Amino acid sequence: MNTFDKTVQLISTEIDQIDWSKEPRGLYEPIGYVLSLGGKRIRPVLTLMACNLFSDDVQVAVNTAIGLEIFHNFTLLHDDIMDRADVRRGRLTVHKKWNDNTAILSGDVMQITSYKFIAKTPSQYLKPVLDLFSQTAAEICEGQQYDVDFENRELVKAEEYLEMIRLKTAVLLGCALKTGAWIGGAGEEDAQLLYDFGINIGLAFQLKDDLLDVYGDEKTFGKKIGGDILCNKKTYLLIHALELAKGDDVTELQNWLLNSDENLSEQKIKAVTSVFDRLGVKTICEDKMQFFYSKAIAKLDKVAVLENKKQELRKLAEKLMFRND
Amino acid sequence: MNTFDKTVQLISTEIDQIDWSKEPRGLYEPIGYVLSLGGKRIRPVLTLMACNLFSDDVQVAVNTAIGLEIFHNFTLLHDDIMDRADVRRGRLTVHKKWNDNTAILSGDVMQITSYKFIAKTPSQYLKPVLDLFSQTAAEICEGQQYDVDFENRELVKAEEYLEMIRLKTAVLLGCALKTGAWIGGAGEEDAQLLYDFGINIGLAFQLKDDLLDVYGDEKTFGKKIGGDILCNKKTYLLIHALELAKGDDVTELQNWLLNSDENLSEQKIKAVTSVFDRLGVKTICEDKMQFFYSKAIAKLDKVAVLENKKQELRKLAEKLMFRND
Repeated sequence: MNTFDKTVQLISTEIDQIDWSKEPRGLYEPIGYVLSLGGKRIRPVLTLMACNLFSDDVQVAVNTAIGLEIFHNFTLLHDDIMDRADVRRGRLTVHKKWNDNTAILSGDVMQITSYKFIAKTPSQYLKPVLDLFSQTAAEICEGQQYDVDFENRELVKAEEYLEMIRLKTAVLLGCALKTGAWIGGAGEEDAQLLYDFGINIGLAFQLKDDLLDVYGDEKTFGKKIGGDILCNKKTYLLIHALELAKGDDVTELQNWLLNSDENLSEQKIKAVTSVFDRLGVKTICEDKMQFFYSKAIAKLDKVAVLENKKQELRKLAEKLMFRND
Repeated sequence: MNTFDKTVQLISTEIDQIDWSKEPRGLYEPIGYVLSLGGKRIRPVLTLMACNLFSDDVQVAVNTAIGLEIFHNFTLLHDDIMDRADVRRGRLTVHKKWNDNTAILSGDVMQITSYKFIAKTPSQYLKPVLDLFSQTAAEICEGQQYDVDFENRELVKAEEYLEMIRLKTAVLLGCALKTGAWIGGAGEEDAQLLYDFGINIGLAFQLKDDLLDVYGDEKTFGKKIGGDILCNKKTYLLIHALELAKGDDVTELQNWLLNSDENLSEQKIKAVTSVFDRLGVKTICEDKMQFFYSKAIAKLDKVAVLENKKQELRKLAEKLMFRND
């Protein structure tokens, strides 16, 4: 069994070795740039770790894993254009460093490149992997569309929000695990359990993100605290706050939602956080996160491999849940 | 053998039957809109006709053909954002009817959808079809990138231009024919001959486009004559004109290239066309078009099927070459 750290190292080395110095430069250079920004490489790591549960050889799953990581980075690239985000991982986004057209076109060829790697999946698994990948890729776009739609809607229900983050975030984790399991030789039942493990970890992961944005420590979080509050993002916290607020809290929340005065940023973050605290939405979010986390672990428990083989995935799940960044 | 018209009807019916009324509406509605704008359906028709050379059953190639048509329309959708084009086939482009973000995201899911259809290729041909499709898709993006790059370059050589249109236009015709041939059961040699037929028809087709833009009849062409001249597009005509011009012609061409006064549009078109006429670049372009057309036909001649089976492809090639629109 490979440890988590060794798996990260393995996949990072593989990704770093891809040659993007192809012509036309203007098309391929931004791809190398995006991938060089790093990131946690969670998705390809999950693929290799799931594969490793059933097979000592994880090299067979490397190309598929790379395909998933390239796809993930492609979605970030295009999302950054849509969100007009200037910075990603402390560096300029592609559409800022180059321009919108470059970001669109390089993204397009990144998506194609992810399919090129997926196509290198061992032939006996190609069709199911390809189908699951396309389904997942479409779902991620659907999640992004709901995310955009929700911005323009006054009311979003908690279930709608959970469905949105399932599509936007969780399905790719599920897909990464399931494809890895398949390629490792898992039976359908274990592959599906790992998919479900991924979905639930993904949901918990996103709720953790919502919590960190408000209650995280700026030093370790890496981004400014309160970003979601400032842009009125309908997170799990805000959705519940809007649902539970009564009397003065309603007025206060609504007033702050209408207030985009940058000079009042700090006050807005403080005030909205106070409302959250009064309404106890932090606990609601933590409970829901714990619910998905427990569900994930229950799925992993059922996977029919020796307990010691599952240790690394357990540790990774814990790490994702109890992180500060 | 199915006639060209019957093949168009067959594939159009199949494309029209695809249900795009899925949720989220904002994501899928634009795809249905783009595909409803019509177009010649040349690419999927080529796939079915190539298949039909080797197999009476063309239904086996329908999904692959649809995948190629969806991909082609995806490229138009994203190209229209990059070119800031407002109108396509007499209707508003997606980014005008909706907005840029919708056009980016719907395009992304269109690309994924094209892969979903490609994945339905009969299993024994899936891997080669998938690989050729991804290679072709990447080449089309490369062609688009060169096209953008050339806009900002003072000098573009004729060979560079031909390579750009090979990538941007011709390879998808080659891919359509080759995949159809494979699925019909063709041997590798015939499949490659049909690919080469497609490449050369594609090159001739694009040169015909360059000619029509200047020398076409506005009534039948459907677009305004002189569009390429007004935006200084480095077509095969302009590239040769810049190469051949001497003395006063150089000054006149350069002055008009620097002149973007909309009130002088008609004069600019007339003047540049006169320079083209004086330099004989129309003939140079026609000769090159004829060269590729003859090369295409020579490739088709060598395909090892009965002559009467090739009649419909011959007629189609002629139609593409001697069209007025």
